[in-house]
Amino acid sequence: MPDSLQETPTILHNSSTLHGHQLETSTAPYTEMAQDDLNWKTFFEENSKPNHFDENVKLISEVCQQAAIKKLRVALITSGGTTVPLEKNTVRFIDNFSAGTRGSASAEYFLEAGYQVIFLHRSKSLEPYSRHLVGRSIFDIIEICPENIIVGEKHQAEMRKLTEKYQRYKSSLLMISFNSLSDYLWLLQATAQKMQILGPLALLYLAAAVSDFYIPASQMPCHKIQSSGGPLSLSLQLVPKMLAPLVTLWAPNAFIVSFKLETNEALLETKAKESLEKYHHHVVIGNLLHSRKVYVLLVDRNNSAPEEIRLSDSELESGIEIESKIIENLKIRHDNYYANHKTG
Amino acid sequence: MPDSLQETPTILHNSSTLHGHQLETSTAPYTEMAQDDLNWKTFFEENSKPNHFDENVKLISEVCQQAAIKKLRVALITSGGTTVPLEKNTVRFIDNFSAGTRGSASAEYFLEAGYQVIFLHRSKSLEPYSRHLVGRSIFDIIEICPENIIVGEKHQAEMRKLTEKYQRYKSSLLMISFNSLSDYLWLLQATAQKMQILGPLALLYLAAAVSDFYIPASQMPCHKIQSSGGPLSLSLQLVPKMLAPLVTLWAPNAFIVSFKLETNEALLETKAKESLEKYHHHVVIGNLLHSRKVYVLLVDRNNSAPEEIRLSDSELESGIEIESKIIENLKIRHDNYYANHKTG
Repeated sequence: MPDSLQETPTILHNSSTLHGHQLETSTAPYTEMAQDDLNWKTFFEENSKPNHFDENVKLISEVCQQAAIKKLRVALITSGGTTVPLEKNTVRFIDNFSAGTRGSASAEYFLEAGYQVIFLHRSKSLEPYSRHLVGRSIFDIIEICPENIIVGEKHQAEMRKLTEKYQRYKSSLLMISFNSLSDYLWLLQATAQKMQILGPLALLYLAAAVSDFYIPASQMPCHKIQSSGGPLSLSLQLVPKMLAPLVTLWAPNAFIVSFKLETNEALLETKAKESLEKYHHHVVIGNLLHSRKVYVLLVDRNNSAPEEIRLSDSELESGIEIESKIIENLKIRHDNYYANHKTG
Repeated sequence: MPDSLQETPTILHNSSTLHGHQLETSTAPYTEMAQDDLNWKTFFEENSKPNHFDENVKLISEVCQQAAIKKLRVALITSGGTTVPLEKNTVRFIDNFSAGTRGSASAEYFLEAGYQVIFLHRSKSLEPYSRHLVGRSIFDIIEICPENIIVGEKHQAEMRKLTEKYQRYKSSLLMISFNSLSDYLWLLQATAQKMQILGPLALLYLAAAVSDFYIPASQMPCHKIQSSGGPLSLSLQLVPKMLAPLVTLWAPNAFIVSFKLETNEALLETKAKESLEKYHHHVVIGNLLHSRKVYVLLVDRNNSAPEEIRLSDSELESGIEIESKIIENLKIRHDNYYANHKTG
């Protein structure tokens, strides 16, 4: 078993100095690929299962089994950001910016396209249907009458439409939530494995904003880091790239779509292609932080030209969401994958 | 103007090595108190005002002016955790664990005790009244009838009670939200200054979980930190202690209550006392991460014995919240403060 996680530096809270935390840097040679190949198993050994894990896996398993019997497609959608604790009694953590907009909108379009959806999302991030009501208080939507409490007249039409959709699709939608990186990875692994029964009917749509860096549990301080120690140096390890075992071991027959969020446009296509070459999955959707609601770039592993999806200003104004076009596009790609997989 | 923020280390993303980020440690001498005394002005110079700042300050000012005319008490309640960006195009940030439970519950009890409340809270953290509905979907609360959309029968009693309270108090409650540490500090300063008009009628209840460490804007990378650079070292600066200018300059006549959240019980009373000795405000409420819903320790600056508030199991089971007792206690302390302030 590799012990490379232990060789690298961590938070050193040096109580012998009043003037600052001290940090040692590692001098050990470091090779990213070698770590990737080895460390995902170590990660699961070092981080215990989340609360309610077995109950959640049972629910996931039931969805997959029922869908397999009925030959229904199942989309696993991951959504929202993962957290990385900096302390064992977690007061502070590193978080990734993600409201869950992409994932929650996409869930609605996958449902409308006939998929069963497992929505693996950050607790309190946006959820399908209720996302449309964000920023509005329920107390401003409902009104008290002497005999009843009703939805106010100006909200009736919208609430009727949303509630009807919610009722129509709720039996096709399984919501599972996570907070930490570790919770997320445990649930991702288990879900992918349970989806194996679906073969190429399974689609993975990895829209969650997953931490790249973490502090291994063995290297975290037990108590809250005291600010009286002065400036703080943190040394974070790379999270093992779980896409590697996901594609080769956990979900070898599923159609797998990942995202690359960048802030630098110059890196977008290159990063997407590098990811496909490295992990051999099916589609990478590149997007930029500041244009992600109107522009994405779909890159596939067959080296065909990247496909752009853009919303025009008029589409945007009329309320069309880019996710409707993304899922329409992916549905066709998944059709082809399924046809080739069956006959191949 | 001190330039000590520039003297200390930051993220060094050394592109000349493939094997890891490098970090330099500062060798400059460092004195916490000296930095505290000087840096709060620098912080505001280096971090620009949040969006909608002027509109929000106008709303805050109106609340204070109206209350001053009517001689009403105003409580500023801060609630939820602040974020600290790690990048300028913020993808990653450090966050503090805080759902906003303490602040949102306390807001309800301050309103019931006759205060006007300015609720300065982390965006999407718990809010008064709606906090009771967390985890429940609005779509499961309401039901579609042919003619109307109504609140389902089993939710009627609770929703009626909550909606009535919300309606009764909403004109006494101003909700202002923040995300980052910088947003929070700008709004805290401005609110405290606008509350000066209230003299000792003003109460500040600082329940937000404010970051202790941050990366100065001048030292942040512009683009998303790439994981291909290997392990990441972060060097965080101490946030200037804003309680010092808050007590002496921004709100010199207000009754000020701060919180100390610890995970180590042995440190609780000592930390609370140290804080009072350092900042000369009025009450520190000490609490422990794992018992904060059933136990707090109130320490005041007159060196009288600390006062414990505990919820018994039966109180907890009957739905009593510890915040009802905290606010009852603080109301009496604020009465005394007001009486002495007027005659003193």
